Amino acid sequence: MDLSIIVIGDELLLGQVADTNSGFIARSVAPLGWKVVSVRTIADDAEDIYNAVDEAMKTSDAVITTGGLGPTKDDITKTTLCRYFNCGTHFDKEVEKNIYSIFEKRGLKMNDLTRNQAIVPDACKVIQNRFGTAPIMWFDKHTGCKDTVLVSMPGVPFETEGMLPEVIGALMDKFNPDIVMRHESFIVTDITESDLAARLDCFETHLPDCLHLAYLPSPGYIRLRLDGISAATDEAELQQIFADTCLQLASELSDNLLYTGDSAPDRIVLELATSAGLRIATAESCTGGTIASRLTATPGASECFNGGVVSYSNAMKIDTLGVRGEDIEQFGAVSREVVEQMSAGIQKVSDAECAIATSGIAGPGGGSEEKPVGTVWIAVRVADRLESKCYRFPGNRSRVVDRASTTALIMLAKMLKDLQ
Amino acid sequence: MDLSIIVIGDELLLGQVADTNSGFIARSVAPLGWKVVSVRTIADDAEDIYNAVDEAMKTSDAVITTGGLGPTKDDITKTTLCRYFNCGTHFDKEVEKNIYSIFEKRGLKMNDLTRNQAIVPDACKVIQNRFGTAPIMWFDKHTGCKDTVLVSMPGVPFETEGMLPEVIGALMDKFNPDIVMRHESFIVTDITESDLAARLDCFETHLPDCLHLAYLPSPGYIRLRLDGISAATDEAELQQIFADTCLQLASELSDNLLYTGDSAPDRIVLELATSAGLRIATAESCTGGTIASRLTATPGASECFNGGVVSYSNAMKIDTLGVRGEDIEQFGAVSREVVEQMSAGIQKVSDAECAIATSGIAGPGGGSEEKPVGTVWIAVRVADRLESKCYRFPGNRSRVVDRASTTALIMLAKMLKDLQ
Repeated sequence: MDLSIIVIGDELLLGQVADTNSGFIARSVAPLGWKVVSVRTIADDAEDIYNAVDEAMKTSDAVITTGGLGPTKDDITKTTLCRYFNCGTHFDKEVEKNIYSIFEKRGLKMNDLTRNQAIVPDACKVIQNRFGTAPIMWFDKHTGCKDTVLVSMPGVPFETEGMLPEVIGALMDKFNPDIVMRHESFIVTDITESDLAARLDCFETHLPDCLHLAYLPSPGYIRLRLDGISAATDEAELQQIFADTCLQLASELSDNLLYTGDSAPDRIVLELATSAGLRIATAESCTGGTIASRLTATPGASECFNGGVVSYSNAMKIDTLGVRGEDIEQFGAVSREVVEQMSAGIQKVSDAECAIATSGIAGPGGGSEEKPVGTVWIAVRVADRLESKCYRFPGNRSRVVDRASTTALIMLAKMLKDLQ
Repeated sequence: MDLSIIVIGDELLLGQVADTNSGFIARSVAPLGWKVVSVRTIADDAEDIYNAVDEAMKTSDAVITTGGLGPTKDDITKTTLCRYFNCGTHFDKEVEKNIYSIFEKRGLKMNDLTRNQAIVPDACKVIQNRFGTAPIMWFDKHTGCKDTVLVSMPGVPFETEGMLPEVIGALMDKFNPDIVMRHESFIVTDITESDLAARLDCFETHLPDCLHLAYLPSPGYIRLRLDGISAATDEAELQQIFADTCLQLASELSDNLLYTGDSAPDRIVLELATSAGLRIATAESCTGGTIASRLTATPGASECFNGGVVSYSNAMKIDTLGVRGEDIEQFGAVSREVVEQMSAGIQKVSDAECAIATSGIAGPGGGSEEKPVGTVWIAVRVADRLESKCYRFPGNRSRVVDRASTTALIMLAKMLKDLQ
């Protein structure tokens, strides 16, 4: 199925707001085997919207638009869609009820401008927006032997992300009712993409037609995704082939396979620690709280994350984590000695079995010949097991912090996995 | 000047990588008065690239493409541009030298695939890419009385962001040589966008034609940007009008004006603390290290940020920050008593004069009738001054953490500003 995405909003072309919707939609439909043929960002301009919709409807099976659905007069997507689908509007009581309940939840009073959100085009089916006041509008178009669908979704990422599964489900029912799919992800570390591709060359060559392997490299690790697709009538066969191939792939990946499933390193750490009944703490210098922030982004993190110390100053390294001042003096704050003591210190302070510690030079200043910008020492501990390592990460400050954080989480995940 | 942006790459349409380049470019050119008329994301497909370039060249003064410049065979932007501009290629010694120096800096050895990056279209002027190996290519096209420029930039955000100022400078020289501009930003808090618009109604009505005011709302604050533009011959006059209007706007904004300049709350805090000779520390519960992570994202943060504690568990609140266990028992961890003690505790532990403390319920679980999800207590201190407040933020976990972090930083910034 070919999908076009049209992102509507002056604020996007002015760079005031970054479009995250199109990426989210693309990421969500890729495993379904749908092809995003075009993403277009346009202004809140009736002609631009009309023309973009017209082009997309002619070249795709489905079109998702986001944005331009607000109650203010600069939002003109709805009236333009009425013109395109050649219809009038009516007041929808169900939508009004939905708006009312959302306003009530937020403790706000509904005004006329907002009540107007319940006016919907006659030609559309409404999908109630459980996350906001703008109704999601589904339009069918039949031309010749081709069925095309346009779904108009809100611009607010929170709302579009929340409602997308329902929209995708409805599109699946319409376009792929007789298709079944399987997906599995594999988190792979300590190998370059090209070395991995070389190792899997034979495996990929012999993949059955119903399976496809995608490489999704991230800084610090590679995610492999195996997708399987078949007619619903062949579901049992797909199931068997898919399971066998997953086992075969895992065996090919051998020690480079960190985790089977679609989770980022922070979630993998939380999952492995929780299932081992262990608790985690962090002692961060150059990563400045980023590792703690990632670990706590997952709901329920408090069940296995005790907390951390951001020991940016040497005094805090000494006073809070018990690092020996003379070792900072002798070896420098960015050293094996200091980062190992930080990890021991946070174990003690937090009463957690698992510890992550980082100390490095994120830049742009602070580098030297011996320890250039990007040098980061990382130590991880699980009870009395300890591993520490020095890395040199490329890129600017934020890239160094990002890579150091990911690498530290992966180091801990590997140690936790080895304990299983 | 009308600008079109074409973002090239299969990985973007597959949702594997999010496009941040187009937003960065749009944000960078908006203050120059340039209009981004279209952003288009397309696949690494010769026909798609050719057609998108052709359409954009016809409808804009300048076109910036990003991506598709890698050394591998799936990157075909360069050959497609040769076809569009009807030219051959040659080997460029200067580009080779640049590639060599970049590889040397990274400690890598150049291979033939990478050396091929030095083959450039005959019709282009090269802008040396100081951040990567793919040369930036500038093409001029004259059709009838219209001059159009296409600049092909790399897909790697780090490289495009680094090189964009030079590209914008060259475009300015070509298209706006006789124009001068002025820009100033104003960070405004504690007022809604619509109330602010009502207050500035008269001010905006009387703005001279050479000035324009833009509203850029962020969660937790509003950024106003005043742009001035005039012919170079009227520079002195613009300068005077612009300065007068800035003063007038600041006076209209009154106490709602937190800061004059284009900085996020974390940078404002760092700047105000540095100029007051004060140091900062954080004690975070629900924000989980996000405030520390934001403060340390700025180079040189170590000059005024001592560090912080992420006291996720109650034990860490008690043991590390000295919160009284009986108060947690009596008032709950999310309470004025606890957050005020956290802020006092981190002052002591870190030896910093300024403290930020947060404790709240980020969700989705953990809420109650009395303290629903989104409830966050924030305390800030500067020496012996203390302010604490309870907020209820809307949205999901990441939005609550984001809003709480921003609000806490703004609270400290306001206290620091009041001390001036």
